[in-house]
Amino acid sequence: MGSHQKGERGGSSNGSGGGAVVVDKGVDFAQYFCTYAFLYHQKEMLSDRVRMDAYFNAIFENKHHFKGKTVLDVGAGSGILAMWSAQAGARKVYAVEATTMSGHAQALVKANNLQDVVEVLEGSMEDITLPEQVDVIISEWMGYFLLRESMFDSVICARDRWLKPGGVMYPSHARMWMAPIRSGLGDQKKSDYDGSMNDWHAFMEDTKEYYGVDMSVLTKPFSEEQMKYYLQTSLWQNLHPHQVIGTAAIIKEIDCLTATVNDILKVKSDFLSSITLENTRLCGFGGWFDVHFRGSKVNPAQLEIELTTAPSVDNSTHWGQQVFLLHPPVHVSEGDAISVSFTMDRSKENHRLMEVELGCEIKQSSSKQLPPFRNKFYIE
Amino acid sequence: MGSHQKGERGGSSNGSGGGAVVVDKGVDFAQYFCTYAFLYHQKEMLSDRVRMDAYFNAIFENKHHFKGKTVLDVGAGSGILAMWSAQAGARKVYAVEATTMSGHAQALVKANNLQDVVEVLEGSMEDITLPEQVDVIISEWMGYFLLRESMFDSVICARDRWLKPGGVMYPSHARMWMAPIRSGLGDQKKSDYDGSMNDWHAFMEDTKEYYGVDMSVLTKPFSEEQMKYYLQTSLWQNLHPHQVIGTAAIIKEIDCLTATVNDILKVKSDFLSSITLENTRLCGFGGWFDVHFRGSKVNPAQLEIELTTAPSVDNSTHWGQQVFLLHPPVHVSEGDAISVSFTMDRSKENHRLMEVELGCEIKQSSSKQLPPFRNKFYIE
Repeated sequence: MGSHQKGERGGSSNGSGGGAVVVDKGVDFAQYFCTYAFLYHQKEMLSDRVRMDAYFNAIFENKHHFKGKTVLDVGAGSGILAMWSAQAGARKVYAVEATTMSGHAQALVKANNLQDVVEVLEGSMEDITLPEQVDVIISEWMGYFLLRESMFDSVICARDRWLKPGGVMYPSHARMWMAPIRSGLGDQKKSDYDGSMNDWHAFMEDTKEYYGVDMSVLTKPFSEEQMKYYLQTSLWQNLHPHQVIGTAAIIKEIDCLTATVNDILKVKSDFLSSITLENTRLCGFGGWFDVHFRGSKVNPAQLEIELTTAPSVDNSTHWGQQVFLLHPPVHVSEGDAISVSFTMDRSKENHRLMEVELGCEIKQSSSKQLPPFRNKFYIE
Repeated sequence: MGSHQKGERGGSSNGSGGGAVVVDKGVDFAQYFCTYAFLYHQKEMLSDRVRMDAYFNAIFENKHHFKGKTVLDVGAGSGILAMWSAQAGARKVYAVEATTMSGHAQALVKANNLQDVVEVLEGSMEDITLPEQVDVIISEWMGYFLLRESMFDSVICARDRWLKPGGVMYPSHARMWMAPIRSGLGDQKKSDYDGSMNDWHAFMEDTKEYYGVDMSVLTKPFSEEQMKYYLQTSLWQNLHPHQVIGTAAIIKEIDCLTATVNDILKVKSDFLSSITLENTRLCGFGGWFDVHFRGSKVNPAQLEIELTTAPSVDNSTHWGQQVFLLHPPVHVSEGDAISVSFTMDRSKENHRLMEVELGCEIKQSSSKQLPPFRNKFYIE
């Protein structure tokens, strides 16, 4: 689930399932979980028809996975997936939700007469104890560009502890994609940045003249802070397909049944993209994801469902895409080859946010080669 | 200093100077302090000319308080007050700052050649140890409507520990004010709320029709959440003096030399206001504050300076005013008497945010009495 987030300081005190990172639960709650306690936020996600249709169809077109089975919904929120699982015939559904939203889930379960099947448990997946293992783990854990929020860690934790051998993951697979794009946004952000620096210079002059203090030693850190904010932070966008100017590439594939936290700590991909638009500007890269509901090899889906967040006119989602802008944009033409090296790691200050390095080499179809560059980005 | 804030969960673990409230330092940092580590935010406050002029004049028109003296700047930020104190002749200035902004303050001190006088200390006032007591404590601690952020607690802690007998507080006094106002904002917020509830009803229908789940049990909690957000949360506004439709009243007075944390835990005031505009709508109440730099009785200022955040055309500040809107507004006329009972307490979830109860009785000059009402508000 995509969610806006503020605050960057992590802390100490409790493991989060792999690696040496310790996460302070209080801080994690104040920065991350708390937004999910708001009905308004749940409603936003429940109003995402593409998202809702995908999970609805994945469940109801594959009732054989649910009929008479036990199900665990990780991060149940309002409990929608848990309720659908029950309606599809599950014998028992455990809906685990860390925030006070669990109270609303409980009320919904009762109001929809599913209380004999669905049991809502308030707490984090890492701390909860279930009375039994389950046949199916269902969860809507995807953040912007798939891994923002690092919620899949909690699904892995649940799977390793509570999924029976031969059990099924919903979704079963996930992929991250990237493609070169054009966008007017880069010009805007550059203009905002320039305006901010002009304002800084005027501010410095005034502060020296009226208040006798020289602020010039802060120009460099200020410009770095502003650069990070305006130019280096990835942006949420609902890209139009026409903005995609080259071939898209898969940069990560995840098998939800077998992936470990270690597998997802780092995303590293070197990929090629070919420009498909005649005479245009490479303004940056767009990133998105898809997930699939295929069941497992031993227990496959009857109807495979796909949920994609690729740029679309009619089927956009609340996830949008994540956009990484280049400054300045580069003129490219059909046939130009873009060689990209992409690396994404978790932020040291906050394991739910990401840091990206994006290196780019452009070989123009005229056989001219532009000097390569490497940019740093932050997914906040 | 006014600052936007997000997040409402408090926690456990460390005292905050009075009362039974324990504050988790990690959470406090993630929710509160972290915004002050940004240069952009410091620049906003440093660009507030009314604020800057008041402190600048308070110091340089009263050099006798600083010449050869020791000074403590609580929550020094960029260190501006500390640097001015040094420039005014202080022998030694301790600038205490809890965030990494202290590093920038240190750089500024050096660049302005004040390192022999100003010592920057990174840490919270509650934890820091100074080598000596001081003659003057200077601080810009005021939040929206004076007490939001509850930063004065830290100033009190500093004063009780580090101010010499006979020492002076900068500012020396603070007052909170309220007045009845008119505003188009209430109509807008009511319209936003109504739109949100209409949207909810459409959402409920769709969810029942397409997804087979009845959300109606959540209508009440959703409306409460939306009401709190749109109608009951105080708003930052820069009021025009023409929007003030009745006499203003002082609802709190603080002597910064003697006030205890207990004195400021609760603001309770019953006051009267007389409508001064002919035929208008009482849309709500505006709240603001002023502070004064008077020195102390034994060591008074030579020139008393006032910093006011009252509605003003030319002298507005980054604090604006806090606006508490009534729904619906009430028609009033010149001479009508408004009797207000105002109570403000700290939020249980977050001691830096406030909860308000505002009771109102209107006696119309035609001797008609409107039914009294009492509204709850949140300062977030």
